Amino acid sequence: MNPASPQTRAAPTPTAPPKTATSETATATSESATATSESAQRLQALRRELAGRGLDGFLVPHADEHQSEELAPSAERLTWLTGFTGSAGSAAVLAERAAIFVDGRYTLQARQQVDTALFEPRHMSEQPLSAWLGEHLGGRRLGYDPHLHSQAQVRRLQADCRRAGGEAVPVESNPLDTVWHDRPAPPAAPVVPHPLDFAGRPSAEKRAELAERLGAEKIAAAVLTQPDSIAWLLNVRGGDVTRTPLPLSFAILRDDATVEWFVASAKVADPQLAEHLGNGVALRPPEALGAALEALGKRRVLADPGSAGAWIFDRLADGGSEIVEGDDPCLLPKACKNAVELEGARAAHRRDGAALSRFLHWLEEEASNGSLDELAAIERLARFRAAEERFRSLSFDTIAGSGPNGAVIHYRATPATNRRLKSGEFLLVDSGAQYLDGTTDVTRTVAIGPVAVELRQRFTRVLQGHIALARQRFPAGTTGSQLDALARSRLWQDGLDFDHGTGHGVGSYLGVHEGPQRISKLPNAVALRPGMIVSNEPGYYKEGAYGIRIENLVAVVEDARPDDEKPMLAFETLTLAPIDRSAIEPSLMSGEELAWLDAYHARVRKSLSPLLGEADRRWLESATAPLQRE
Amino acid sequence: MNPASPQTRAAPTPTAPPKTATSETATATSESATATSESAQRLQALRRELAGRGLDGFLVPHADEHQSEELAPSAERLTWLTGFTGSAGSAAVLAERAAIFVDGRYTLQARQQVDTALFEPRHMSEQPLSAWLGEHLGGRRLGYDPHLHSQAQVRRLQADCRRAGGEAVPVESNPLDTVWHDRPAPPAAPVVPHPLDFAGRPSAEKRAELAERLGAEKIAAAVLTQPDSIAWLLNVRGGDVTRTPLPLSFAILRDDATVEWFVASAKVADPQLAEHLGNGVALRPPEALGAALEALGKRRVLADPGSAGAWIFDRLADGGSEIVEGDDPCLLPKACKNAVELEGARAAHRRDGAALSRFLHWLEEEASNGSLDELAAIERLARFRAAEERFRSLSFDTIAGSGPNGAVIHYRATPATNRRLKSGEFLLVDSGAQYLDGTTDVTRTVAIGPVAVELRQRFTRVLQGHIALARQRFPAGTTGSQLDALARSRLWQDGLDFDHGTGHGVGSYLGVHEGPQRISKLPNAVALRPGMIVSNEPGYYKEGAYGIRIENLVAVVEDARPDDEKPMLAFETLTLAPIDRSAIEPSLMSGEELAWLDAYHARVRKSLSPLLGEADRRWLESATAPLQRE
Repeated sequence: MNPASPQTRAAPTPTAPPKTATSETATATSESATATSESAQRLQALRRELAGRGLDGFLVPHADEHQSEELAPSAERLTWLTGFTGSAGSAAVLAERAAIFVDGRYTLQARQQVDTALFEPRHMSEQPLSAWLGEHLGGRRLGYDPHLHSQAQVRRLQADCRRAGGEAVPVESNPLDTVWHDRPAPPAAPVVPHPLDFAGRPSAEKRAELAERLGAEKIAAAVLTQPDSIAWLLNVRGGDVTRTPLPLSFAILRDDATVEWFVASAKVADPQLAEHLGNGVALRPPEALGAALEALGKRRVLADPGSAGAWIFDRLADGGSEIVEGDDPCLLPKACKNAVELEGARAAHRRDGAALSRFLHWLEEEASNGSLDELAAIERLARFRAAEERFRSLSFDTIAGSGPNGAVIHYRATPATNRRLKSGEFLLVDSGAQYLDGTTDVTRTVAIGPVAVELRQRFTRVLQGHIALARQRFPAGTTGSQLDALARSRLWQDGLDFDHGTGHGVGSYLGVHEGPQRISKLPNAVALRPGMIVSNEPGYYKEGAYGIRIENLVAVVEDARPDDEKPMLAFETLTLAPIDRSAIEPSLMSGEELAWLDAYHARVRKSLSPLLGEADRRWLESATAPLQRE
Repeated sequence: MNPASPQTRAAPTPTAPPKTATSETATATSESATATSESAQRLQALRRELAGRGLDGFLVPHADEHQSEELAPSAERLTWLTGFTGSAGSAAVLAERAAIFVDGRYTLQARQQVDTALFEPRHMSEQPLSAWLGEHLGGRRLGYDPHLHSQAQVRRLQADCRRAGGEAVPVESNPLDTVWHDRPAPPAAPVVPHPLDFAGRPSAEKRAELAERLGAEKIAAAVLTQPDSIAWLLNVRGGDVTRTPLPLSFAILRDDATVEWFVASAKVADPQLAEHLGNGVALRPPEALGAALEALGKRRVLADPGSAGAWIFDRLADGGSEIVEGDDPCLLPKACKNAVELEGARAAHRRDGAALSRFLHWLEEEASNGSLDELAAIERLARFRAAEERFRSLSFDTIAGSGPNGAVIHYRATPATNRRLKSGEFLLVDSGAQYLDGTTDVTRTVAIGPVAVELRQRFTRVLQGHIALARQRFPAGTTGSQLDALARSRLWQDGLDFDHGTGHGVGSYLGVHEGPQRISKLPNAVALRPGMIVSNEPGYYKEGAYGIRIENLVAVVEDARPDDEKPMLAFETLTLAPIDRSAIEPSLMSGEELAWLDAYHARVRKSLSPLLGEADRRWLESATAPLQRE
């Protein structure tokens, strides 16, 4: 994802290629042929509702109550209103005009999906909402739903409206929901325990540790609004969204290590779950959260203004709480995987690597005859993965871009865009899965038949960036922002670059994007710590021609050696799959770089061979043969 | 300088080895044998004065009214009170106790110079002022001089005192000055025009451009408190401090491009100066600044909370101004040198390189006989430089550290610490000069006789970092923080690092440290722009053994090549002086690295040979011979 994207939330999303850009559900909505006239009717209905409520306008973000990356169908308000299915954006509606704000990745898509006679398409950062409000709001009142905007976002919105001479007004209930008559029910997938064999630490222990930290800062309670944080804290998983195994919920963690968990009762009906949760966790209906926040009274309460909805702050203030603004306290401990989670990640990556190797072998055999296309590749890869033990789902919709489609960073193949794989072209495949013991995310760029020198040169530059990062040791305290340039240095020497982050955090059978660490041009003060899993995914994209990305997940590990003068860290590469040797120009690489690649390939061969059948094993043997003479 | 140093001002100081750590004047004070008892008397006098004024305590920073890096003797209040001569620190005095706060570089020095029975020595960041106030202030009133603390510092101080249950109270006049009976007069060196041949742009043009920017933001006036900004804006230079050719002064720049310049009349008596300044600049006595600030009235006025004294904000508020907080508007245009300044820098670096080459040749001939010491080397180098055309002064006190002294990053040789140069050791020489056409700053680490493999290996790692940065191309928009790791990558691989920034900005016949750009681990949002001059100075320091630093100044230049897909920038190395070949292990270096070094040495040879006599030229020929076979 373009790092110039104006999303300011500290989540990892903006720094990496967008995995969950378009959920299948949302895509379906956009394919209605009558979308345009539908959109006009819906916009008209919304305006009538606003007028009835005495509001002059309303803001419709691509967001849910948790500022989730992946939305449930019931939260796809922006798509319902405008037809736009991208992963980021917002619409602003006034009585006489409306606009949709998207970032650079989506300007083209927005023009295709949205009736621009109804919604003026605007570039989120170059023609931002604040400017549009300055031009058009005047002395009027713009409504917003305080459940769908973080406190930080509302502060900016209020300032923008004031500067425009108007006012931002929170609504009690969402007027769009009132007119969205066939709005899907919120998801209610059952919650399941996440066993200690995979979680590695009992929930009670995690809660006790966090409670102690709260106590040290004289904080009585923390409001948790991020579902993956709660899933981690309580050692549970769920299925409310397609690609991430989490239950949508809220929680309040007290300094006595107890939790009030605000979750729909239908999701937690299983009595075994109550046993798993134990006495320290009280189940409450989500509707009870507001009153519970007020009931915290004059205590010191922690809430995260970057992710918690503005309404949470309002209710805490109503109750008289002293609000301590700070990061979600689960973020950092969740990011630092324990030994069991790391072992799980290694095991999951072996199975995932075996599935991917079978796919790559199949691809090599089938692609050259010219009958394969992107959708077929996606389907086959999913089948190989689904056959693996502990497989639960893909971790995001597979990206498979051949030729020029590979250069579209957020590309998702559809029947309309689907291309045949052609000899002489690259196929970029970014994919991953959710296994009970770990989440995977891997990109391989495969040469279909022989490819031109230019493609091999650029592939090699990307690979050199990948290797530079993979083999870099660094002192404890180093941030991903400090390391980012190492992955770009070789491309920069050739006047090239890539417009997305180099790495994002990854969860343990949780979100394929998680914070707080990232490797990116954007400043980030979070040091990389042992146990963090992060992607290493430099790329290069030539518009209209081809795309290259080479992505492995790596774990941050301690790396003490005898002569070190500082506590040093390094990356352990988790992903195990061959990197296409036929796409490499070995003459451009240094001996150290070739040695890294050959050693990596030897490890891939050794780790995966026992999991493969004879034919795949023979293929892997040659796909991982050393480039350097012994 | 240790980047963990708690200085939060956005000045470049904390990110680089401290050049002006100890001015000669300040050092003289510390050598008084009776410093301790003097300090007791002075502290007693200050406490009596405080009691008389109804204050419970007082804060004494190492600072002047401009938050200058280099203090005039009249501003050395901390030294006068405590005996401490370091470049950063502060003392807090209460009736029954006092403490001095210094950073990690100075903890040892503070214990040597300060009577610890009077002043408890504390580590600035590990045992900060805020904690000390929390322990000891209670409900009392701590005085501070609002001229000597920036607005940002005062905000923190006020919060710290409130949290401690007390109060921070600004004083009208400084109580320490009242009891410092033999306080030196403020400096009053004459101001001289800085001719267009060196400045490159008329002051009127600079003022018009800044005024236009103020106008675009509807700002009526900007308060300028940084003397180097004013010297740049008015094309003048001065001599109020030892190593930087600037007059201490304040100014107000209006949106009509006129300036009121608040400067002591004794400095600007020369009628030719008035002519140089022209009609747009009105001379005012410094005492008139307060009234002028109030007289700005209800206008929008720009002031920099990071560098402007808190009193400025108070007077603006008294006058009813709408204060716009922002960076000093001169910072960025001053940092981006124009073509004439860059040509001046190149010429100054040729002369400086010739002087340094004569010194290095002399050193090689004399050092091996064992009679030379650090002070003799410093003296001789200064003589070589002083003989150069357009030389005005050194740009900082030369650092010459032999053997273990080289590992003391802020080392300044004194008769007590002076070491003989010994065969088998490194001599680290960090030095520079102020020439009318440019400011230089260069570090060479020289092997005295043959040195051990370990020293050569580490020297080579530092050199590889230097070269990696020197030859890196990067897209426009890249910050120094993004590039910093390139200079450390090789050291990190060996478990090594250095505890200071990689590069600081450098002025044009102005400060040897200037912002806003820097190359450092610390996040810095300022992109490197064409014309910026910055140092490239990775190092390595082994405590008690040796120090290595290799520093060249580089200019950021546009670097467009045919196949570039982005506007690219690169570094042009300005410094011209041989890097000691005998300290290098060529086998550790790549072909690209050796090629860079050989090409650099060829350029040094070609540029400097015409300026050298026969013997020096012959020496340079061998000192710059290629390491790679043709």
